[in-house]
Amino acid sequence: MDRVRAAVLGGTGLVGQRFIQLLDGHPFIEVTHITGRSSVGRLYGEAVDWRVEVSIPEWAREIKVSPSDPELLAREGVEVAFSALPASIAADIEVGLAKRGIDVASNARPMRMDPDVPLLNGEVNHSHVKLVKLQRETRGWKGVILKNPNCSTAILTLYLKPLLDEYGLERVMVTTLQAISGAGLRGLPAMYMVDNLVPYISGEEWKIENESRKILGSLAGDEVEHLDLEITSTATRVPVIDGHTEVVYAKLSRRPEDIGEVARVLGGFRSAPQEWSLPTAPEKPLVVRDGEDRPQPRLDRLEGDGMSVVVGRLSLIDSRDGPWLRSVILGHNTIRGAAGAAILAYEVYRAYQDKGLL
Amino acid sequence: MDRVRAAVLGGTGLVGQRFIQLLDGHPFIEVTHITGRSSVGRLYGEAVDWRVEVSIPEWAREIKVSPSDPELLAREGVEVAFSALPASIAADIEVGLAKRGIDVASNARPMRMDPDVPLLNGEVNHSHVKLVKLQRETRGWKGVILKNPNCSTAILTLYLKPLLDEYGLERVMVTTLQAISGAGLRGLPAMYMVDNLVPYISGEEWKIENESRKILGSLAGDEVEHLDLEITSTATRVPVIDGHTEVVYAKLSRRPEDIGEVARVLGGFRSAPQEWSLPTAPEKPLVVRDGEDRPQPRLDRLEGDGMSVVVGRLSLIDSRDGPWLRSVILGHNTIRGAAGAAILAYEVYRAYQDKGLL
Amino acid sequence: MDRVRAAVLGGTGLVGQRFIQLLDGHPFIEVTHITGRSSVGRLYGEAVDWRVEVSIPEWAREIKVSPSDPELLAREGVEVAFSALPASIAADIEVGLAKRGIDVASNARPMRMDPDVPLLNGEVNHSHVKLVKLQRETRGWKGVILKNPNCSTAILTLYLKPLLDEYGLERVMVTTLQAISGAGLRGLPAMYMVDNLVPYISGEEWKIENESRKILGSLAGDEVEHLDLEITSTATRVPVIDGHTEVVYAKLSRRPEDIGEVARVLGGFRSAPQEWSLPTAPEKPLVVRDGEDRPQPRLDRLEGDGMSVVVGRLSLIDSRDGPWLRSVILGHNTIRGAAGAAILAYEVYRAYQDKGLL
Amino acid sequence: MDRVRAAVLGGTGLVGQRFIQLLDGHPFIEVTHITGRSSVGRLYGEAVDWRVEVSIPEWAREIKVSPSDPELLAREGVEVAFSALPASIAADIEVGLAKRGIDVASNARPMRMDPDVPLLNGEVNHSHVKLVKLQRETRGWKGVILKNPNCSTAILTLYLKPLLDEYGLERVMVTTLQAISGAGLRGLPAMYMVDNLVPYISGEEWKIENESRKILGSLAGDEVEHLDLEITSTATRVPVIDGHTEVVYAKLSRRPEDIGEVARVLGGFRSAPQEWSLPTAPEKPLVVRDGEDRPQPRLDRLEGDGMSVVVGRLSLIDSRDGPWLRSVILGHNTIRGAAGAAILAYEVYRAYQDKGLL
Repeated sequence: MDRVRAAVLGGTGLVGQRFIQLLDGHPFIEVTHITGRSSVGRLYGEAVDWRVEVSIPEWAREIKVSPSDPELLAREGVEVAFSALPASIAADIEVGLAKRGIDVASNARPMRMDPDVPLLNGEVNHSHVKLVKLQRETRGWKGVILKNPNCSTAILTLYLKPLLDEYGLERVMVTTLQAISGAGLRGLPAMYMVDNLVPYISGEEWKIENESRKILGSLAGDEVEHLDLEITSTATRVPVIDGHTEVVYAKLSRRPEDIGEVARVLGGFRSAPQEWSLPTAPEKPLVVRDGEDRPQPRLDRLEGDGMSVVVGRLSLIDSRDGPWLRSVILGHNTIRGAAGAAILAYEVYRAYQDKGLL
Repeated sequence: MDRVRAAVLGGTGLVGQRFIQLLDGHPFIEVTHITGRSSVGRLYGEAVDWRVEVSIPEWAREIKVSPSDPELLAREGVEVAFSALPASIAADIEVGLAKRGIDVASNARPMRMDPDVPLLNGEVNHSHVKLVKLQRETRGWKGVILKNPNCSTAILTLYLKPLLDEYGLERVMVTTLQAISGAGLRGLPAMYMVDNLVPYISGEEWKIENESRKILGSLAGDEVEHLDLEITSTATRVPVIDGHTEVVYAKLSRRPEDIGEVARVLGGFRSAPQEWSLPTAPEKPLVVRDGEDRPQPRLDRLEGDGMSVVVGRLSLIDSRDGPWLRSVILGHNTIRGAAGAAILAYEVYRAYQDKGLL
Repeated sequence: MDRVRAAVLGGTGLVGQRFIQLLDGHPFIEVTHITGRSSVGRLYGEAVDWRVEVSIPEWAREIKVSPSDPELLAREGVEVAFSALPASIAADIEVGLAKRGIDVASNARPMRMDPDVPLLNGEVNHSHVKLVKLQRETRGWKGVILKNPNCSTAILTLYLKPLLDEYGLERVMVTTLQAISGAGLRGLPAMYMVDNLVPYISGEEWKIENESRKILGSLAGDEVEHLDLEITSTATRVPVIDGHTEVVYAKLSRRPEDIGEVARVLGGFRSAPQEWSLPTAPEKPLVVRDGEDRPQPRLDRLEGDGMSVVVGRLSLIDSRDGPWLRSVILGHNTIRGAAGAAILAYEVYRAYQDKGLL
Repeated sequence: MDRVRAAVLGGTGLVGQRFIQLLDGHPFIEVTHITGRSSVGRLYGEAVDWRVEVSIPEWAREIKVSPSDPELLAREGVEVAFSALPASIAADIEVGLAKRGIDVASNARPMRMDPDVPLLNGEVNHSHVKLVKLQRETRGWKGVILKNPNCSTAILTLYLKPLLDEYGLERVMVTTLQAISGAGLRGLPAMYMVDNLVPYISGEEWKIENESRKILGSLAGDEVEHLDLEITSTATRVPVIDGHTEVVYAKLSRRPEDIGEVARVLGGFRSAPQEWSLPTAPEKPLVVRDGEDRPQPRLDRLEGDGMSVVVGRLSLIDSRDGPWLRSVILGHNTIRGAAGAAILAYEVYRAYQDKGLL
């Protein structure tokens, strides 16, 4: 396969940095451009306040930061753009790229809920990529726009998918304990995060509740029918660098035999990205951890190179109103919840093309 | 009122230190003894690794640490003992004291669920203090043993009580984010609490679920009938010094008019400790905080000198199966959740005596 | 004494909040105005993101935030202004106030090193307040401008003063471990302060080295002769909310008998603010702590209501080039190092006036 | 080269875990045994509370934990033992091993200062390995005992070595800001490390001052002549997981031309481990970092896979008494400062043997 020329949009932020890290050594994607705003014209290695725990790749250091200008990127032969742009400017730029034939895999919020935009969480709803047919028809763009979900949603829906398929879901109540990196490099003051936590994240709960219903929905013809599932969420911020923890209470339609069976269903979950060995797909999407005090962010967030969700504290509650499953799940918010999910979405799209499924 | 001679048992630990802090300047209690184990014979000011944010009271510095010996304490005229003893040794010592006529107000776990032991959370169930009649009859002790609940339970039930009275409770699902001090001075290694959280606390969930049902139960004759309420809880530990946060989903029997009404019901809650102006009772047991990002441990834990529970993020969810109330609540775990609750329990007991209600 | 009408300039920031806290209940100062920028017109209680560990005083909640407008403040009868203004705008506003007859006690950097501006650290150099005579002559203002030093400098010079007087100082090498609050409410991202420290604070080392020489200098006629002392400093930021720790190596001119003598010299240090019982002066400016692992920020920063400096780890090093004294010192950066120092500076000024010393 | 059968002694602790991580994939060392105390008989994967940020190697999971019994290890063909034993039991076991012909590379404190025991910091004093000749003569053991220095010392001396060689050292004053992992998995309570720091580490300053003089000393015949250098140190503990930061003031005998020259001297430092391409030797022992706010633990500790020391904030101070160099240095305490240094010491020993230098 020829190497695809890629741009990372908004490459100096925390999600942009993860794109650079994850695309380092990718088998068929080559980053040729990195865009920014205030750092345009400087070498990436000098412009970025690199916060990833491993060193910045040498090739990335030497790339000169470009403006996020669709015309320019098209002219210079960029074929795909991975977007970590701020929500306020993402839509215009991403549409401009798609019009010019550049495919976009974007972590930015705008357009996620548009009916003709695939909101992709690789293993969960790869078939939703077929929405691009509707997108092409109605928009008339030469490129496509693919979106990955909000970080907490990506982690949650990966866990919920096998439960939905095996037992049915009636209701979900979730409390998140989210990492600081989710707020960006300068989004959260240190004064808030020493000897403290903040039980609120603006806009987060709406996204968890609504994006999940789209992702877990089923493709019917050209449309995704959102899942009719009641989800209630409370989002909190805790003093952790990377890794969102979520305490999930899920009411099931059918009672599992026992917790061992649930563990097998979760741990055995595989999907198209695994079958097709997509480069960014983890071997095990869900890892069920035994220790009674797991998952823990510092210890478990890099499972599956940050693309797996780790599950622990499984417990079956036989309530008067039916069986509930309690668990604590953990995923890497800027990998599985952002940059990794976007790259996997693009890999799914390419696989569908290669297999003639689109 | 004559000053009552008091001992603080296990006075060098974190809860013991809070007893000393809270009893400093108490109108009718005077600490004459502080007990310990490895520090016996040393001055308290030298033996204690004082971790309270205000200075150790001068009078306390000069007290020589005694052994937790019922015989000795009785001989030296101690009338009440506030116990912060470890669970493993508490029962024997506390029973020894009661037998010798010393009243005990104890934060230690053993005997909390005994049918003849009042498990008191001042404002919530002060009338349960009448169990001491049964206790005296069946045990034949001259003193009484009063218990306060587990820290998370004390905070949770104070919040639930007015909801139960006004709307009825059908189901409670709670996730706690608990402070480090709850594990004691050396209970939790620093390696676990930097860039991390631990989603498990041994024994905590059982206590929350079972103690709450006793506290919220009703006195029928000589017995407390536990409340028939389904409670599910998940306890996590986060890098916060003091202050337990709890995310509470409560299914109500009756739908409130709107969230403003709920706020008024909670904020207006008063009980006997307020009516009788007990020294340790806060003016407002529940403080409803407006800011969308509150309560926060560092900012709200000292509300009402640490005896109030702060409530925020109230939200009404009209679910298919009935109305749910979502909230985030916060209380000081070693004050309202431990030492303060024990002192208030003893004040309730004295008030009942003074008013001839026992 | 009649109560003086005071304004707190820049009252919503962290130092502004400390001014409000410390002036609550002041015997002769009454806060009538609080100024701000984006919050003008709103009630202070609603505008401020209050981060002090005790509640905001009721009277302060109800003050409507004014602009930092000298004309307006003069018209409304303000007599003294306590300034927590950002350096970029402080000079213009403070001069405007002084011209209109309003005295200014300011924590802002500009003008600190001006020869006619007293840079006051109460106990260390109260007599420098006499520079106001020169200031009045050369500037022709009706009011005066008093400055307090940079936070680290205030803590350091308070410790060095009795050593200088008793033993003489030849060289000082200091490493600071500074708290987050020193960077302001939003000055430092949380991403930098979890599992990390930053060994650099912009401009800090210059201030420590130069301001110290002015403060420790002696008044000769109308001028302060800066102390000819070599000071080298390295400033680091650590994950602590309040309380700057400083590791100080000081080369002495004369060798102390032993470390006990040094402890007595430091612990016995008193100065005019103590003799005159100024309201904000701590009983003991320097507290020598015994424990081998002290001072610690969370335990010692509120000593003397945050106005004392706590000293520990005293050790005498008999080096080839003379006697060095090693110590670790700690002070509250927004109280002794900012708001408290400014208030004390004004109290010194008033005392000098009242005693006819000016 | 045949693979050497190795045991990791005390393998479940933090340093033991680093041994396992670093020996994973080693070209000529194969771990066949892991020893412990309370975990004897269990599989390592189940016994260990694994705290390294990457996953535990599969081969290590399946090793059954043995007792630290020299007889047993000798019988089962162990050839080298890497020791992370507690100081209290290390000496007996390590001597027992050496008597039975097993070489020991040990991180444990005892015997470090013995004149016939090489205290090795690979690049700094590899030739000291020749002390084993004296050791063999005087002790009559078939195996040898090699020691690596205390963590802070390993980092410090690696930085000082090229300065000593190029400019001469007259005096060193250092303040350390040490990571939590240096105290072991359960050595430091979380209550001490949230919103706090501790300015004391038991025994650490003595080790820094004395071990450094031995390491920087020169081999004269069969003995190491300790360097006659005044070192003063203050050790503090800060809320960082891994990575010791040290603020170093070094008085030089000769003034460098400028700071650029110093940077070249440090950055260009190479030694035998680099020339011989020893497996655990980093390409660059010292990395001079440009950013004014570097080094930072979270960002720089994994430089050179944790074996490099990162240097920043270089500044030349022309003092009256001569030229001082100020810097902030950072090294990974459980890699360069412990397990990595021990493995490198053994690699040095083997290289000396292979080259016929012993």
